[in-house]
Amino acid sequence: MVSALFDPVFGADRVAARLDDASWVAALVAVEVALVRAAAEHGVVPTADAERIEAVAAGLRVDPAALGRAAVEGGNPVIPLVRMLRAAAGEAGASVHPGATSQDVMDTAAVLLVGWAGEVVLDDLRGAADAAAALAQEHRDTPMIARTLGQQALPTTFGLVAAGWCTGVDRARARLAEVVGALPVQLGGAAGTLAALHPHGPAVAASLARALRLADAAPWHTERTRIGELAGALAVAAGACAKPATDVVLLAGTELGEVSEAAPGDSSSMPHKRNPIAAVTARAAARRAPGLAAVLLAAADHEHQRAAGPWHAEWQTLDELLRAAGGAAARLRTSLEGLQVHPERMAANLALPPVGAAAPGHAGELVDRLLAERVR
Amino acid sequence: MVSALFDPVFGADRVAARLDDASWVAALVAVEVALVRAAAEHGVVPTADAERIEAVAAGLRVDPAALGRAAVEGGNPVIPLVRMLRAAAGEAGASVHPGATSQDVMDTAAVLLVGWAGEVVLDDLRGAADAAAALAQEHRDTPMIARTLGQQALPTTFGLVAAGWCTGVDRARARLAEVVGALPVQLGGAAGTLAALHPHGPAVAASLARALRLADAAPWHTERTRIGELAGALAVAAGACAKPATDVVLLAGTELGEVSEAAPGDSSSMPHKRNPIAAVTARAAARRAPGLAAVLLAAADHEHQRAAGPWHAEWQTLDELLRAAGGAAARLRTSLEGLQVHPERMAANLALPPVGAAAPGHAGELVDRLLAERVR
Amino acid sequence: MVSALFDPVFGADRVAARLDDASWVAALVAVEVALVRAAAEHGVVPTADAERIEAVAAGLRVDPAALGRAAVEGGNPVIPLVRMLRAAAGEAGASVHPGATSQDVMDTAAVLLVGWAGEVVLDDLRGAADAAAALAQEHRDTPMIARTLGQQALPTTFGLVAAGWCTGVDRARARLAEVVGALPVQLGGAAGTLAALHPHGPAVAASLARALRLADAAPWHTERTRIGELAGALAVAAGACAKPATDVVLLAGTELGEVSEAAPGDSSSMPHKRNPIAAVTARAAARRAPGLAAVLLAAADHEHQRAAGPWHAEWQTLDELLRAAGGAAARLRTSLEGLQVHPERMAANLALPPVGAAAPGHAGELVDRLLAERVR
Amino acid sequence: MVSALFDPVFGADRVAARLDDASWVAALVAVEVALVRAAAEHGVVPTADAERIEAVAAGLRVDPAALGRAAVEGGNPVIPLVRMLRAAAGEAGASVHPGATSQDVMDTAAVLLVGWAGEVVLDDLRGAADAAAALAQEHRDTPMIARTLGQQALPTTFGLVAAGWCTGVDRARARLAEVVGALPVQLGGAAGTLAALHPHGPAVAASLARALRLADAAPWHTERTRIGELAGALAVAAGACAKPATDVVLLAGTELGEVSEAAPGDSSSMPHKRNPIAAVTARAAARRAPGLAAVLLAAADHEHQRAAGPWHAEWQTLDELLRAAGGAAARLRTSLEGLQVHPERMAANLALPPVGAAAPGHAGELVDRLLAERVR
Repeated sequence: MVSALFDPVFGADRVAARLDDASWVAALVAVEVALVRAAAEHGVVPTADAERIEAVAAGLRVDPAALGRAAVEGGNPVIPLVRMLRAAAGEAGASVHPGATSQDVMDTAAVLLVGWAGEVVLDDLRGAADAAAALAQEHRDTPMIARTLGQQALPTTFGLVAAGWCTGVDRARARLAEVVGALPVQLGGAAGTLAALHPHGPAVAASLARALRLADAAPWHTERTRIGELAGALAVAAGACAKPATDVVLLAGTELGEVSEAAPGDSSSMPHKRNPIAAVTARAAARRAPGLAAVLLAAADHEHQRAAGPWHAEWQTLDELLRAAGGAAARLRTSLEGLQVHPERMAANLALPPVGAAAPGHAGELVDRLLAERVR
Repeated sequence: MVSALFDPVFGADRVAARLDDASWVAALVAVEVALVRAAAEHGVVPTADAERIEAVAAGLRVDPAALGRAAVEGGNPVIPLVRMLRAAAGEAGASVHPGATSQDVMDTAAVLLVGWAGEVVLDDLRGAADAAAALAQEHRDTPMIARTLGQQALPTTFGLVAAGWCTGVDRARARLAEVVGALPVQLGGAAGTLAALHPHGPAVAASLARALRLADAAPWHTERTRIGELAGALAVAAGACAKPATDVVLLAGTELGEVSEAAPGDSSSMPHKRNPIAAVTARAAARRAPGLAAVLLAAADHEHQRAAGPWHAEWQTLDELLRAAGGAAARLRTSLEGLQVHPERMAANLALPPVGAAAPGHAGELVDRLLAERVR
Repeated sequence: MVSALFDPVFGADRVAARLDDASWVAALVAVEVALVRAAAEHGVVPTADAERIEAVAAGLRVDPAALGRAAVEGGNPVIPLVRMLRAAAGEAGASVHPGATSQDVMDTAAVLLVGWAGEVVLDDLRGAADAAAALAQEHRDTPMIARTLGQQALPTTFGLVAAGWCTGVDRARARLAEVVGALPVQLGGAAGTLAALHPHGPAVAASLARALRLADAAPWHTERTRIGELAGALAVAAGACAKPATDVVLLAGTELGEVSEAAPGDSSSMPHKRNPIAAVTARAAARRAPGLAAVLLAAADHEHQRAAGPWHAEWQTLDELLRAAGGAAARLRTSLEGLQVHPERMAANLALPPVGAAAPGHAGELVDRLLAERVR
Repeated sequence: MVSALFDPVFGADRVAARLDDASWVAALVAVEVALVRAAAEHGVVPTADAERIEAVAAGLRVDPAALGRAAVEGGNPVIPLVRMLRAAAGEAGASVHPGATSQDVMDTAAVLLVGWAGEVVLDDLRGAADAAAALAQEHRDTPMIARTLGQQALPTTFGLVAAGWCTGVDRARARLAEVVGALPVQLGGAAGTLAALHPHGPAVAASLARALRLADAAPWHTERTRIGELAGALAVAAGACAKPATDVVLLAGTELGEVSEAAPGDSSSMPHKRNPIAAVTARAAARRAPGLAAVLLAAADHEHQRAAGPWHAEWQTLDELLRAAGGAAARLRTSLEGLQVHPERMAANLALPPVGAAAPGHAGELVDRLLAERVR
């Protein structure tokens, strides 16, 4: 899931650190511990067992590779992890994993991970939007030529262009925050009826949610609209980063020369190159998102009470999509925070025939409006 | 865009009737008329011209094929439509299309069409969810076996299964309604600065929005998060339909036999067949949505102030996605509204070894909760 | 499936004329007629019946809308079409559709349609490649600056750029021709065993293939690698068109000005615009292909002996993908056949600092090689 | 790129070992070494330098994480790797990376990796197809009911079902082998003209191809039909695995019970479960392929002479797609190699009303034909 070689290039290193094997193991263990505490809270298991299991879990050394190999038989890492915890907990072992099924733990752990990784993605989206807003403010009245279908059209301002970048990233961030923030705990048991916790099932689920600071909800083991919404929100965020990144690449082109990056990349063969490499790699990261989102959207058809494939297909795809969207945000942020704007080149390009000078209409007001209306 | 042969099979006939060439032409004309009225309201064009243009537009007979041929040169149908309106309006012709660019009219017309077609999609989603809710209520306590990874697991109730269907479709509908309802008017002029309407630009845009009963917004010609959100919401809706449709197909299988459709399909070669054809075609329609959504999500990289491709790629893809999601909803509704449930087969399957009878836990309470929490 | 309004804009009108409802009906009827003739050839049905059915079919007036409505019940148009043919054939009616199931007729008709539509796509791909080759030849030694990551790099020639365009389109065309040309007849009967034609099943299938000039093959009703290969080939063709179209849009940009289209588009608001609209709409058409291909590739999981959804999802998606790829080819052909090259602008851009003049290496030889190695 | 936790579950561990960071570094170094040897062969650099560089490279210890961090500035790992090699080679350093640009090395290294990883994928595809062929042979005449649209249809044999599985996987394997085997070396230099190697460019490229046992070709730095073809072939292979995996999951369902896996998975909550987990995880892996393929197919629009994003988006997507397709093949192989067939359950299901017994037509002959026609 993590590539030390490529993650930094595509801005995914920070988010990947919260999505690696160790993070998955930590999330799985956190869910098992919180579950047994919640069960103890309602008398389903002895409190002493819960305490013992928590202590044991804190000291557990889990080798992801060994866990992965042991996970092959049952098709997910929860089954061997439960075995490990039971073995380690001795006489309290029978109280491990009370009333739960693998999917409860995998889904809730995935929600935790999305929260952890999402924090990084949201932070970089905010940073990119703030940088765009600062550019918009500074260049509120810097005239440049608008280009439509690649051709010079009529004047606008760089401020309005940058304000549009800001709006897109802001809107995407706000929606992503909403979706991530609403992801609930999953607890349904083997058949989704909470039968093994009866009559305390809903109460245990509510306690579990509280302990993990997640929303509470009825079991959603095969009702995956939340995963689809998350996929959509992440892909929209990637797209919102692709737009300014594409503009930076084009505006930085030699013949336009209207912007340049603070740390343009060099070349293995051409020392004179000034490649807008942060924007280039932001675009590349963003390009990966729509296909990954399609995989998650297509995986909505969870048949019966546990899907034989569509569910399992979510795990790594979600990881990859978080890395792609997060990477796009991080690289765009770098590009925009250091962006150098060249008003004199904008003026020169604006002076080319046949357009000539003209007032940029309501551009200034629109900048003010877009910045005032920023979604927080 | 419309196939008389296939649309009924995939439930898209009702929604397609609001997405055909005539609907597009009607929406384009409606926008041009509303625009000139809005401009007149602020003194940008003479009121008499606006009235003349409105009258002329009402009588205009536009042949979509001729308009399509004339649209090749400029790449969209607005350019020749404006020519037609100008020619028809005589001396008032100069007041046609005040301060606007093609994209303003195309985007706003697309928003109108999404509203028109969305109404049908939302209605069928509500119908499908209501049918699922009725099944959940009626079979709140009908025991059946839960199946996980295709294997018999532990007991649940058909009520809980159907309540889960209802929740998914409800959630998808609510989000779709939110996204569709928030789609705003587009008015920015050639460069997105409203320059040609200065100093009345924002006021004209606000009037246009009011007249078309759309939200007002600063120009979003290259800020396409709304299109991405719409794509996500439609694909999630299709996925929410795919889940129950898949369950119906599986539960209706000969060996399970737990449900059947009211009007099962026959076969060209096997008269004994009872195919759950509404669910089958709902699945088929839903399968098309993720790829179409990916196209729209990938089209977020609108470069400069009008994209040379990504924008144009939206039009037909949006049509197709509305047809796919709407078709899935319509066919699922048919399937569920007529669904026949066979509790005796459920009981017989439940009695198979090795599972045997067991209490379905909190199933009944969960049904009550899911139905009580329905998103309206 | 056909939009009179949008098809011309996206170059899909010629290919769409071979994919419309009437074409589907014609293909379905052609398969039914050829099937009964093939069955008669082997004594499965009386020759007189076959002749009668052929005559009746020739005179049959099928309203696609009525057929579409009648197709809802069974989920495909073959079932009502067979009923119509039987009714029309009177006493020969029992000989209609001998030994076949709906999927046999739908799949074989789809193969026919792909052949008909594919001819247009291949023709436009050839036209586009030929135009690129002519440009490469004419401008074999026209120097221009190569641009990497948007920045001026080192000199190349326009000939080499155009030769690369040619190679990509040629390769895609050759593969598409190979895949389309190998698509076989489908005949398996209700269960894929040819039981109802026993002991003449394989012989009838071979005769059917011969009559329709298709390859013969064992039933592939649920073995869909051919559909996946077709999806891949069409998407690759669209991508091969997207590359030159993207280059044309960029090179035609005001500041570069190195090429322009013969019939640049105008604007509804800016009379000075010279939009490279053929390339723009080629890009737009091409953008739709990858998502559509993904839908077909994902539909490979045809369960059991006839898929309940994945199969049905192929029909309209295949139509759309043919239109997208064909449209991209047609619009690119228009763009390249009329492309005006401006060597003086190329020279001026080449003279900009910091690159300066330099010999374009093996560019000329590479042009010669690429053109000599053209896949026919 | 590699997850010790999840790769084994999804069958990707064997292929992932050839796609990890260390493999990328090894491939990059191998290309640089082969390039300098090829250049020396034609007198472009001194042979002594080439030998020195080869020796230095053999002893080079490259930390992928450090290389990744150093790669951020230029956007790819070749730039810092060349710096490392130059520093290590001392006076021979000036001969490192002769006439090449980063893309030459990245693309050629990717081709090497695809070959290494492809070998594993092809091996598992062959193993899966062989297992299916053995099942087909053994059960050539084992009757079972065919199911269409989920309903019992008419009799077939398990042999014919398994022969169809074999055919699909074989066809996909043959095409994948063809595409992988034809991937050529990339060498074009900074602008794709081989200028820096003039007049030895094509000769050096040919030598490089020979040394790396790759095909020779003119530069294809922006002509990406090969990448698209590879994407299509891998996704078709995944789909060819999804079909039998889906059948296994369904046939192994409790109520059908016609097959079971050798090592069915257990459950964290239900000890009686016999989950066909190899087939389940094969399906899950296959589900990821279409979206990943769409990303690669959409990345065909490499603008100018080096794409600012589409190129970079290929690297990790290609890795992921190889892992998805390879994982599907590996897990399917496991499923089929150990598949237990239950003819008595097939007979019992066949005896259910209303179908009853009937001869399975040409099933046996078709098995013979499909096995005889196996693509080698």
